Amino acid sequence: MRTPPGTRADYAYFQSHTTRWSDNDVYGHLNNVVHYKLFDTTVNEWLIRAGLLDTRASPSIGLVAETGCRYHGEMSYPQRITAGMRVAKLGNSSVRYELALFADDSDTASAEGFFIHVYVDAATHRPCPIPADVRSALEGLVK
Amino acid sequence: MRTPPGTRADYAYFQSHTTRWSDNDVYGHLNNVVHYKLFDTTVNEWLIRAGLLDTRASPSIGLVAETGCRYHGEMSYPQRITAGMRVAKLGNSSVRYELALFADDSDTASAEGFFIHVYVDAATHRPCPIPADVRSALEGLVK
Amino acid sequence: MRTPPGTRADYAYFQSHTTRWSDNDVYGHLNNVVHYKLFDTTVNEWLIRAGLLDTRASPSIGLVAETGCRYHGEMSYPQRITAGMRVAKLGNSSVRYELALFADDSDTASAEGFFIHVYVDAATHRPCPIPADVRSALEGLVK
Amino acid sequence: MRTPPGTRADYAYFQSHTTRWSDNDVYGHLNNVVHYKLFDTTVNEWLIRAGLLDTRASPSIGLVAETGCRYHGEMSYPQRITAGMRVAKLGNSSVRYELALFADDSDTASAEGFFIHVYVDAATHRPCPIPADVRSALEGLVK
Repeated sequence: MRTPPGTRADYAYFQSHTTRWSDNDVYGHLNNVVHYKLFDTTVNEWLIRAGLLDTRASPSIGLVAETGCRYHGEMSYPQRITAGMRVAKLGNSSVRYELALFADDSDTASAEGFFIHVYVDAATHRPCPIPADVRSALEGLVK
Repeated sequence: MRTPPGTRADYAYFQSHTTRWSDNDVYGHLNNVVHYKLFDTTVNEWLIRAGLLDTRASPSIGLVAETGCRYHGEMSYPQRITAGMRVAKLGNSSVRYELALFADDSDTASAEGFFIHVYVDAATHRPCPIPADVRSALEGLVK
Repeated sequence: MRTPPGTRADYAYFQSHTTRWSDNDVYGHLNNVVHYKLFDTTVNEWLIRAGLLDTRASPSIGLVAETGCRYHGEMSYPQRITAGMRVAKLGNSSVRYELALFADDSDTASAEGFFIHVYVDAATHRPCPIPADVRSALEGLVK
Repeated sequence: MRTPPGTRADYAYFQSHTTRWSDNDVYGHLNNVVHYKLFDTTVNEWLIRAGLLDTRASPSIGLVAETGCRYHGEMSYPQRITAGMRVAKLGNSSVRYELALFADDSDTASAEGFFIHVYVDAATHRPCPIPADVRSALEGLVK
């Protein structure tokens, strides 16, 4: 049986997103790909605003190893979307973020997914431990 | 000599946009294409929120005939962008919108462009006059 | 232990894709979202070219219920990408496509994922059986 | 009076592009933004394949100063698109590319536009002369 959609209370951090004309596909709803754009944006913006990621200078960066999304309901431009985020699994070199998208003021997720970052050396792209400051911040998002 | 960038006072209507991770290109700045996504989004969202466009039901719709953009300065994710809009030319069946993009709190446009809609019958795609209610609303944006 | 990447022999249908400047992110590789654009494109183009989907007229359409992707290796513009596709599970109203992306002439997948379509009535968006002609064609892709 | 659409004979270099499901907007045709993605892709791929651009290592790079597009006719996924390119103006530090998009086997452009690159130092982003090898190659595209 399918897991029921999550609510805002299930998530630890929230970020607002505007939608775009080009997000709607021929059926008049958000194309399934847009959800991943918002996952990506939410994770990285949290990292950048927390001072944990400088794409030009950080010695280690997160590469995306696996992502997934279940679509519960349709959303469409020009709705506003709030992304909820939590950390579900924190390993030595990888972190599993879980994310949900809420349309306008809805408390029920229209979609839920995950996003796994594996930390690698920025130059060699070989796996490395999650930096201590990143790990410490991620612990605050575990839920 | 190049025209200096416009300021917020040059525009009549404003709309806020969030940026996305995928908006930045390999040089770390907003890809030149993103500007057009925001132009498109601003024009159509204004029309939709004013009750002047229902993409499924309106008997006539605006098709894009010509667009253009001058890039004054670089912007980048995760900046917020405010789009300014004005109506520069209002013909029988076409309208020329002019738009500007302002990064975060800047009063100087990082980019300015235009977007020409030609109204066509939704079924036949043959040119038709701008509907009276749309024309009336557009007149309020002339600047 | 992680499943090793698949090869072309594991897939039943192939489609070529060009990449775009805006596909590369700030790290100089294909953004993780692009993979889903290619999955989506491959499934729907197969349907359209087989005469099984007319987005304007088909009485039933496939809505995306769940998607996922594992990233094995990096790809980048201007590489050409071949998408491989197979049908892994064919239910009454849903189908699970599995897809792989191969960079240039590589026989090893750079990414593998899945894409689940649930058939719904085009007007009401209520689940309905997969149309007989679609089902018959899908059976030819089971692998 | 509007200039008639160009033909393939008006252009000097050609590049093939596949379209994507997400390129079509709610009206079922290529969103006006996609044209710019193909312009961008064509110019940079020509530069990269000619050995004239390494986005990570080139000492000078082209920044986009101005772009524009006139839309003559509609195109839609899953059509193939051929981009035609020519050099219209070659200055000391800037080059004006002109581009056209041809749907499938059509000899009449569905859209025509331009794309102005200003060469800048990759580190400081200050204007600099077009490198000699780039200039020499661009001269071969003047038409």
